[in-house]
Amino acid sequence: MSVYRLLISCPDTHGLVAIVSQFILEYNGNIKEAHHHLDEQNKHFFMRIEIESNSITCSLDDFRDAFSVLADQCNMVWQLSDAAQLKRILIMGSKASHCVADLLHRGHENELEGEIVGVLSNHDRLSKLASWYDVAFKKVSISQDTKEADMNKMMKTVDSFNPDVIVLARYMQIIPEEMCVEYSGKIINIHHSFLPSFVGANPYERAAERGVKLIGATCHYVTANLDEGPIIEQDVVRVDHADSAEDMKKMGQDVEKITLAKGLKYHLEDRLLTCNNKTIVFS
Amino acid sequence: MSVYRLLISCPDTHGLVAIVSQFILEYNGNIKEAHHHLDEQNKHFFMRIEIESNSITCSLDDFRDAFSVLADQCNMVWQLSDAAQLKRILIMGSKASHCVADLLHRGHENELEGEIVGVLSNHDRLSKLASWYDVAFKKVSISQDTKEADMNKMMKTVDSFNPDVIVLARYMQIIPEEMCVEYSGKIINIHHSFLPSFVGANPYERAAERGVKLIGATCHYVTANLDEGPIIEQDVVRVDHADSAEDMKKMGQDVEKITLAKGLKYHLEDRLLTCNNKTIVFS
Amino acid sequence: MSVYRLLISCPDTHGLVAIVSQFILEYNGNIKEAHHHLDEQNKHFFMRIEIESNSITCSLDDFRDAFSVLADQCNMVWQLSDAAQLKRILIMGSKASHCVADLLHRGHENELEGEIVGVLSNHDRLSKLASWYDVAFKKVSISQDTKEADMNKMMKTVDSFNPDVIVLARYMQIIPEEMCVEYSGKIINIHHSFLPSFVGANPYERAAERGVKLIGATCHYVTANLDEGPIIEQDVVRVDHADSAEDMKKMGQDVEKITLAKGLKYHLEDRLLTCNNKTIVFS
Amino acid sequence: MSVYRLLISCPDTHGLVAIVSQFILEYNGNIKEAHHHLDEQNKHFFMRIEIESNSITCSLDDFRDAFSVLADQCNMVWQLSDAAQLKRILIMGSKASHCVADLLHRGHENELEGEIVGVLSNHDRLSKLASWYDVAFKKVSISQDTKEADMNKMMKTVDSFNPDVIVLARYMQIIPEEMCVEYSGKIINIHHSFLPSFVGANPYERAAERGVKLIGATCHYVTANLDEGPIIEQDVVRVDHADSAEDMKKMGQDVEKITLAKGLKYHLEDRLLTCNNKTIVFS
Repeated sequence: MSVYRLLISCPDTHGLVAIVSQFILEYNGNIKEAHHHLDEQNKHFFMRIEIESNSITCSLDDFRDAFSVLADQCNMVWQLSDAAQLKRILIMGSKASHCVADLLHRGHENELEGEIVGVLSNHDRLSKLASWYDVAFKKVSISQDTKEADMNKMMKTVDSFNPDVIVLARYMQIIPEEMCVEYSGKIINIHHSFLPSFVGANPYERAAERGVKLIGATCHYVTANLDEGPIIEQDVVRVDHADSAEDMKKMGQDVEKITLAKGLKYHLEDRLLTCNNKTIVFS
Repeated sequence: MSVYRLLISCPDTHGLVAIVSQFILEYNGNIKEAHHHLDEQNKHFFMRIEIESNSITCSLDDFRDAFSVLADQCNMVWQLSDAAQLKRILIMGSKASHCVADLLHRGHENELEGEIVGVLSNHDRLSKLASWYDVAFKKVSISQDTKEADMNKMMKTVDSFNPDVIVLARYMQIIPEEMCVEYSGKIINIHHSFLPSFVGANPYERAAERGVKLIGATCHYVTANLDEGPIIEQDVVRVDHADSAEDMKKMGQDVEKITLAKGLKYHLEDRLLTCNNKTIVFS
Repeated sequence: MSVYRLLISCPDTHGLVAIVSQFILEYNGNIKEAHHHLDEQNKHFFMRIEIESNSITCSLDDFRDAFSVLADQCNMVWQLSDAAQLKRILIMGSKASHCVADLLHRGHENELEGEIVGVLSNHDRLSKLASWYDVAFKKVSISQDTKEADMNKMMKTVDSFNPDVIVLARYMQIIPEEMCVEYSGKIINIHHSFLPSFVGANPYERAAERGVKLIGATCHYVTANLDEGPIIEQDVVRVDHADSAEDMKKMGQDVEKITLAKGLKYHLEDRLLTCNNKTIVFS
Repeated sequence: MSVYRLLISCPDTHGLVAIVSQFILEYNGNIKEAHHHLDEQNKHFFMRIEIESNSITCSLDDFRDAFSVLADQCNMVWQLSDAAQLKRILIMGSKASHCVADLLHRGHENELEGEIVGVLSNHDRLSKLASWYDVAFKKVSISQDTKEADMNKMMKTVDSFNPDVIVLARYMQIIPEEMCVEYSGKIINIHHSFLPSFVGANPYERAAERGVKLIGATCHYVTANLDEGPIIEQDVVRVDHADSAEDMKKMGQDVEKITLAKGLKYHLEDRLLTCNNKTIVFS
């Protein structure tokens, strides 16, 4: 059963749920799932509605046109997508393979509601892995001396994949602000710490040094502020005094790959909305 | 801000969300929070809607009367309650005090959306604890020889408290079927295992014997089938080979009290619906 | 079965385990449990050994005297205690009661390997709770204007309890450096965040603002550096976009009380050693 | 730094730790890590000692011969292995690829202390995956009609790999008793439920039907009693009313692969001992 997904974010006004559900009913739409959230502090309302595609009496484009009139009246930021239209996923990695291998395997097993269109890296190491899974691989080296030119080349390569979502699977390079803006809300990163702890480099070393009893990973949208974007998902794993930074790194890899996959899944299924620097996750 | 809470369970039909939200809008009701769930297997729809009490233009009784007409048309099982009307909680315990003490403390600190009206036990041990918290205590002994008479006395005592919800906080006696029926959907139990593992007596001993690596607790509604009622909440804690059954019992007590408190909270806030032998938790 | 507990921390040298276990055997001691840890980075060795008290052929004092000779040879920092000798626990709280009530109840149920000798607070609110549990209560107000004098009075009151361990159960005041030094390794605090995230005041508000998906609590030894002492235990609980700072505070209270109780238990059972700013937990 | 690992299981007697550590010291052995556990119920003692290989003054064989004399005196069941000697791992799978792919990737990244020598399946589906990772693949079909002959062929194929450990990565066939005996303590299975819940087939369907709030996976040694062998590791993940059996199956796959990898790691690092039907995990 295929569905359309309507995501709405707007100032709270009286009768919103009734207005929207009435509109859908006029087009004979059958609501399969609906989530609502009122942010009381900001008086802002958020909705996610799944409508059976077949129940709608007109084309998606016509339905979209009609809805846009209503949306304008209510000052909505909104998005209406067809779940059958798979999103194009670009994976960006560096040398570490755990997250990339996990995502490629999920793609291969049709676990993702999306199509992995490429792997882009600043190193060769992931090339063989990508080719195993019949996924295009591009390498764009980034060197300290020619960073600006390299980054420009990288961004052009990214554009050439025409991605709907970019997954930083331990890419290890800071994304240029220009790209953060162009793909705003479309770049997902996995940070190898329980943010806001250990922002920046070498989080496992610093976790070991601080003697924490749980380490974690954080999946978040990328913004121009490093490791400060809206958090999508987090998880932790228990460690103890016998675990070195190296042990933590290994244990953390499992948390990283699961947490990234979970965050990406939410994005692919249009379950994420943002409000200021926070996410609403309609899971 | 006080709210009315509308809980609906009905066969899935076209336009349900629109119909209900339209109805609420007619009475000027402002929806603060709404949850929907379609059980696709059973083609059954579930809703929980929080409406700002002040926004409704008539009395709760009139609103209820009006809604009942709509409810009949859609074959709804439903409930409309005023959150300001605190539920009457009766705690039933035996000798163990961890769950009872935890609930009494939460009641005392106004953490519960309800009023603890009494503690009923088959032993004296909890009497002092209840009196500390200024909660009525009743003892009804249950002896093997006079069980039927004792149980009848117990049930009369329960009725005398006129409870909206009964919490079995490690009561350790099997509840008569008659009482299960009378208070159907209103008796909450905490079982000291991760159900369906270790149904029945001595779950910690059996967990230790089986060598499990996690032990748990299960909060569920009580039905005539022992430990088989709809599960509300579960949680676990890690154990290892060095933990004896006695250690597990102690560690498990923390899981029991937290899990019971969470399950009770869902019930008090009208977040629970049942479908066959399962719960829908709109948390 | 009563036990002596030997805690050792010393530079790593060849044959340490053999030397110590040989020594114990000479006194006919039966080892019930033994933990070892080599910190490879610092070349430092840590041991915890439980010896059946009855098996030792001399008095504890004689055994201690004999061991001190060996300890000096190996440059050991060590401690030999009799588990039957209960530690004196002083609880310090402010207004919030969840941790204090939980600890008092555990004390009352003989769950703690220690004796709660008093509750000290800068407010009256916990007085009734302490008296319920027949535990001495002392109030020492702390006001901004007379802070130094108040703190001196507080410290004298602490001393008057002659505590073996001081539990800051949400005390909310910064402990004077002088007291941190006097009771070094004997003051346990519960911080209401997953350290090192949200050091300092109002962690739940800041967690809500940052939009984290897990909140936590950290039990740690108190040092002169606020919230920077060695971490003993941490735990987390899942939150989502619908949870306000106020909700998080309530949910966090359960994590706080369980985590504090666990950390205190480790301390009371002599399971904790420190190395630089980290703890070794022989659980 | 390479190590020898000594695993000991024997009746508890006086001075065991001293005797063993004294013996190691006589051969100049440096103990890097040591774990002890006394099973009080069974009066049985368990030890795991890591000794720096270089510190021992004779060959491993001579050390082993010498130790065997001591071991006989104390009625020890014991094992002394060289960590540098990688264990040969045989993976057995069926159609599902999540666990197999995860293990192969870990092998490829040198995360496992062992060498994956082959993948054996009753279907073709995993063949390509194995060949990607340059691991030998063998298919032995199992059909209902010729089961006995097929199983014999399978067992011969297993033997041909000369495995030190066999990992059932969702193999889905019941292992013949004969093979359970031959490879006793060397076959590791992942069961897709939180045992002892949902022993046998279709655990996710049954979990969904029962309405549990957590699902899990169990890594255990295989014995002739289906799903009844000693549990090595377990973990769980939270589900809710909106998750179908199909959703649970997908969510459970992540728990399965992580839990299996963790259990295998313990085995490869000689961290597991068994006592009756339970494991001691010296992690």
